[in-house]
Amino acid sequence: MKQDLDRLMTDRNVDALWITGPANHNPAMVYFTGVANITRADLIKKRGVPPVLFHYPMEREEAARTGLRCRNFADFKLDQILQEAQGNSTRAAAIRIARMFRELNVRGRVAVGGTVELSSAYAVMEEVPAQAPDIQLVSDGDDPVLIRARSTKSAEEIDRIRSIGRTSTAVIGETAEFLSSHSARGKFLVERDGERLTVGAVKAFIRRELAEHGGEAPEGLIFAPGREAGIPHSSGIDDEPVPIGKPIVFDLFPCEMGGGYFYDVTRTWCLGYAPEDVGRLYEQVLQAYMEAGKQVRPGMPAKDVQQMVCRLFESMGHPTIRSDPQTERGYVHGLGHGLGLDVHESPYLSHAESNRDVLRIDTVFTIEPGLYYPDRNMGVRLEDTVWMRPDGGVEVIAPYPMDLILPVRRRNTNRKAASKKKPVRSKEKTTRLSIRHPKKSTRSGKKAS
Amino acid sequence: MKQDLDRLMTDRNVDALWITGPANHNPAMVYFTGVANITRADLIKKRGVPPVLFHYPMEREEAARTGLRCRNFADFKLDQILQEAQGNSTRAAAIRIARMFRELNVRGRVAVGGTVELSSAYAVMEEVPAQAPDIQLVSDGDDPVLIRARSTKSAEEIDRIRSIGRTSTAVIGETAEFLSSHSARGKFLVERDGERLTVGAVKAFIRRELAEHGGEAPEGLIFAPGREAGIPHSSGIDDEPVPIGKPIVFDLFPCEMGGGYFYDVTRTWCLGYAPEDVGRLYEQVLQAYMEAGKQVRPGMPAKDVQQMVCRLFESMGHPTIRSDPQTERGYVHGLGHGLGLDVHESPYLSHAESNRDVLRIDTVFTIEPGLYYPDRNMGVRLEDTVWMRPDGGVEVIAPYPMDLILPVRRRNTNRKAASKKKPVRSKEKTTRLSIRHPKKSTRSGKKAS
Repeated sequence: MKQDLDRLMTDRNVDALWITGPANHNPAMVYFTGVANITRADLIKKRGVPPVLFHYPMEREEAARTGLRCRNFADFKLDQILQEAQGNSTRAAAIRIARMFRELNVRGRVAVGGTVELSSAYAVMEEVPAQAPDIQLVSDGDDPVLIRARSTKSAEEIDRIRSIGRTSTAVIGETAEFLSSHSARGKFLVERDGERLTVGAVKAFIRRELAEHGGEAPEGLIFAPGREAGIPHSSGIDDEPVPIGKPIVFDLFPCEMGGGYFYDVTRTWCLGYAPEDVGRLYEQVLQAYMEAGKQVRPGMPAKDVQQMVCRLFESMGHPTIRSDPQTERGYVHGLGHGLGLDVHESPYLSHAESNRDVLRIDTVFTIEPGLYYPDRNMGVRLEDTVWMRPDGGVEVIAPYPMDLILPVRRRNTNRKAASKKKPVRSKEKTTRLSIRHPKKSTRSGKKAS
Repeated sequence: MKQDLDRLMTDRNVDALWITGPANHNPAMVYFTGVANITRADLIKKRGVPPVLFHYPMEREEAARTGLRCRNFADFKLDQILQEAQGNSTRAAAIRIARMFRELNVRGRVAVGGTVELSSAYAVMEEVPAQAPDIQLVSDGDDPVLIRARSTKSAEEIDRIRSIGRTSTAVIGETAEFLSSHSARGKFLVERDGERLTVGAVKAFIRRELAEHGGEAPEGLIFAPGREAGIPHSSGIDDEPVPIGKPIVFDLFPCEMGGGYFYDVTRTWCLGYAPEDVGRLYEQVLQAYMEAGKQVRPGMPAKDVQQMVCRLFESMGHPTIRSDPQTERGYVHGLGHGLGLDVHESPYLSHAESNRDVLRIDTVFTIEPGLYYPDRNMGVRLEDTVWMRPDGGVEVIAPYPMDLILPVRRRNTNRKAASKKKPVRSKEKTTRLSIRHPKKSTRSGKKAS
């Protein structure tokens, strides 16, 4: 959490953080500023002192609204600095930064951060030592201060993740209704005019609903039927039709408008009915999900739960990336990842022996087992975002039923193919998915039940 | 343009480009890949050779669809590399990158690019020299290869900018209709139930319409009435009401969904009527806009047109950032900026003597004069995105009328304040804004007329 920053900076011998870039879609900056209409700013957080935001004059009101201490670039007389730098804007930026450090009495090791274009940032960073000889710009390596601080969440952050979580589940529900409102004709869903509904049209619907709820999907979304479902990050091909009786992996990972907190949730649906082999895969993935939910505990190494899930899938006869690192069939990815201002952040639930991430109190992470057989045109993934609560319980932040089958009407069935397959009904329990949490809850909040 | 890359790399003594990060909201990567659902990849463009995309196994299909030559990270045996690196993931990344360079026979000066989190990218970059001694990572300084190449646009890029431009003007039109469909009560717009319409509700409407058209506004949008209009980058305060008879600066800079090409357009509106001083400001800004449109020519230094506009505004009695670099009143910003995969890119129309940017054939840039008086609760900006065509003409890419006044109905007028002010009607000519273009057009395309 933010309150850990000074301690982490001391532990890692970092005298200051220098964060650069916009105040939107820039986690390191947004962590301090919130989402704001600031196109470019610099934030300096000296150890033991609140951060200071340096901003352009045109953005002074937006900067002031962050509530941070603010300094206007105009006071640094950028025109004169540019003259001093003989018109070299890279050098001018380095001179300005050196003066900002001097004003705040920053010396020593300064860790850099911010999501920015590397070429110009690196150019400025190369020039800084010449302008600020008492500053040493450092990366803080494999476990940066800010990433570590951000890996545990405050109550306010949980609230915001829950809010975008509820947006996500609302949109999933609306998408389910949208699909169910269509009819099946032959192997595909059709619109009222008989035209096939496309994956692209479903995605457009999802994006509209997200915007309606104040969310956005800057990193895309996955609505991947059949063979595409068998490849974890295939997002679905826009002009393909939406099939009946095939698994559709629907993975939604939106954030608050402007690049705030993320949520991440996946459901796998079969429209109308589920073939037996898909139903079996679904039950196995659900079992792994439930098992992982039962195992995770505060202080547990993140790799342990992934290794447990690998063993479980291997015992079911599936290849895993643990048994075969090159496999593209079976269980081919990590069990989950931390989530916050980034959709992927620490802790990572990967199986590598070198993974030192720990599932601490107040970490927020996904649990997302999946099984993939692209050669058999199928894949199943089930995912929720959970919070490791201070009482040691694990809570699905925004619960949503896990049913496999979405009912659709059938009309003008010209082919019998679909009805020949034996339908598998999802079991009632799957709509009431429960992840362990202690009986005595010390915090309020909606629980998975 | 992309075809200039090899020549620019030779000019600047760059042996290869190394671009890293996702294939969305990452201009350097998207320039080669297009918008794709790729969360993290590396692209190496060796001089004289087509680029190669290195991707994760889960994203192999998305990578293949880019049409680029692809290499799968899995072939580099990431597990073994991580062991070699004794679990240090930063070192493991550097080893992998060194092997990628070796595979492509890249040696010498490698320029870095990509919009990524600086702390982890810098950590890897610090480690690369140890793993790849024959590679020198460089920033290519004030005028990077890729930025320069991107500053002129191909016909295909113009088409895509025009497409998001038409989305932008469609949304502006819908927003105008949305506002006009409301009634004025007292000093503010009200909804049907008599509640005041808020700036936040207007922004939500704009975002929904954008999503509907397949656009998004990752860098925000500005809908700023009154005093907020007087500060160029103030985006408008969500819970404030929408006023009658005050200037509202509406600046829309959306991009194609997923982080493709941008457009940028600003209109200033007064609902119902315009006070005389706002009308005068508007006429002056419009004059500067027209004048700038008349002056710009292929090969013209970008600073010249900004200096001309400064002189014009100064002759009207306004302070400008040329006459007073610290001013927050009058004309306080540059005349425009290049636009493409970034909303702000080369060429920059700033007045600095050191500005070496040139308005070349096939550059795309904004013309956006404005006058700002925050102390008098007013500001006016008019902006279009234009293309410097191969025939030397200048074309507004997506024209839209520039009228100042938006009509609204009045109902239950309890106060007379508004009607006492003398209304100023916008003139017909402003809906038919014309920017010079030669009589003989050699390319088709919708022109400003």
